[in-house]
Amino acid sequence: MSVLIVGSTALDSIATAQAKHARLLGGSASHAAVAASFFAPVKMVGVVGDDFPRNYLGLYRKHKIDLEGLQIVPGKTFHWSGEYEVNMNNRRTLTTELGVFESFTPHLPESYKNSEFVLLANIAPSLQHHVLDQMRRPKFVVADTMDLWLNIALPDLLKLLRRVDGFVLNESEARQLTDENNLVRAAKAIHKLGPKYVIVKKGEHGAILSSRDGLFLSPAFPLLKVVDPTGAGDSFVGGMMGYLSTARGSIDANLRRAMVYGSVVASICCEGFGLKSTTRATRVVIDKRMKSLAESARF
Amino acid sequence: MSVLIVGSTALDSIATAQAKHARLLGGSASHAAVAASFFAPVKMVGVVGDDFPRNYLGLYRKHKIDLEGLQIVPGKTFHWSGEYEVNMNNRRTLTTELGVFESFTPHLPESYKNSEFVLLANIAPSLQHHVLDQMRRPKFVVADTMDLWLNIALPDLLKLLRRVDGFVLNESEARQLTDENNLVRAAKAIHKLGPKYVIVKKGEHGAILSSRDGLFLSPAFPLLKVVDPTGAGDSFVGGMMGYLSTARGSIDANLRRAMVYGSVVASICCEGFGLKSTTRATRVVIDKRMKSLAESARF
Repeated sequence: MSVLIVGSTALDSIATAQAKHARLLGGSASHAAVAASFFAPVKMVGVVGDDFPRNYLGLYRKHKIDLEGLQIVPGKTFHWSGEYEVNMNNRRTLTTELGVFESFTPHLPESYKNSEFVLLANIAPSLQHHVLDQMRRPKFVVADTMDLWLNIALPDLLKLLRRVDGFVLNESEARQLTDENNLVRAAKAIHKLGPKYVIVKKGEHGAILSSRDGLFLSPAFPLLKVVDPTGAGDSFVGGMMGYLSTARGSIDANLRRAMVYGSVVASICCEGFGLKSTTRATRVVIDKRMKSLAESARF
Repeated sequence: MSVLIVGSTALDSIATAQAKHARLLGGSASHAAVAASFFAPVKMVGVVGDDFPRNYLGLYRKHKIDLEGLQIVPGKTFHWSGEYEVNMNNRRTLTTELGVFESFTPHLPESYKNSEFVLLANIAPSLQHHVLDQMRRPKFVVADTMDLWLNIALPDLLKLLRRVDGFVLNESEARQLTDENNLVRAAKAIHKLGPKYVIVKKGEHGAILSSRDGLFLSPAFPLLKVVDPTGAGDSFVGGMMGYLSTARGSIDANLRRAMVYGSVVASICCEGFGLKSTTRATRVVIDKRMKSLAESARF
């Protein structure tokens, strides 16, 4: 089963206390698609400009990502630059140049419209709606988001929540959306907005799933060193959807394990700048780390 | 097997955004002893003044805590007052009146000296040393601490670390002690100071154990409402030592489960002011919550 992923496709310039890299392959769709590709075939939807490096297209292809839905148009690729503080928990956006993203409308190729698993990775809620509008009968739709859309596109986002099965957001976004400090209560409040599955990401502390089956406390893989956390959340949800789409049985039976797989890919993402570490990973490496994480969580 | 617990025995005046309570039963030894009492007989070492409410002695006795090592001396009981911010993560000490604690020297009754499990709950490292000096051949010694001792009694604390099997501290204390931001690296650095078992408490995010067997990521029981987190860390380590002292088999085989039991008792502690919620708990309630937490952590 393939996964359809829509999101941003970008060039990221990232500075940490240790190093600085310009125009890395980035964007929520890039991270999520590569993460999902370790588990399932991926169909990507996005847009890049004619300045997009050809070797980045090569990286997508190396991961067998279907690029029929990736528009390459005249103009500049979306460019984000930011810097991290020493502790890696706080980051500051320096510049955001939308480029070809400003006039982007996602068009799904015919071959994409029957996809059963759909990941609406972080991108404007109006574009997430536009992708859903073109789908036939998706089996499981998950949306990710960011604080920006809570601030400037809340009505669109609230409408989207009534159309998705699962919704993923981080701790501070969950608090902002619900005005609830307690995360369990925040998740309960989000169920009332539509999604059956609410996933709150807590970075190095793992993630919480709230569903009919109660709560699941997903651990995060403990890292000795974080090189660059950019894209970790996208990798988490990408890995999760990739695994889910190929696992036999019900969503409920597989979602926990899917989340842990997602957090394993996210941990690999953090070990290099941009997609450098993730694109060097293999399913064997991922399964080994999964086994080690399961052993660390056993009691 | 009984557990010997030394620590502070205090009256706590606590204010949160919701409510305010004066002269509650508190102190690290009180919280740890009540928590441990659900699993094993407890021998407590401490000091209170002649103003100590008789019903608080009754509460200890209700939990079958051996009070032969509790000195009752003329003067005032240690009194701490503090207030929490709305989010419950930050607290501010308003007053600290040491009272009879100022001249306290722990004397162990003969019947205490053969205890195999020793919890040096949070108290000045010099007093923790003094208790250890009087023990015959303890099997497993764990010390807890707080930032105050890192600031004003570091040499004593470092000496203590060479005498204990396990050391418990919270995230910020681990970072302060080792100058390492990453908690896995911080734990590794603490092993070099002596303890075979290093436990880093992360509050609502659980705890990490580092030992020869690698890492264990202990989950925390997710609460819908935190009433008062005072004593949660003491309850964690008390419950952990209580369970450990009665579990059959090796420390390594039981420590993970002991930590999860500790975090269950800590969660109960947070649901009431002072010891109000913990002293109403039963082993049946604790086991039920343990089962629910195990289910929430399964994948």
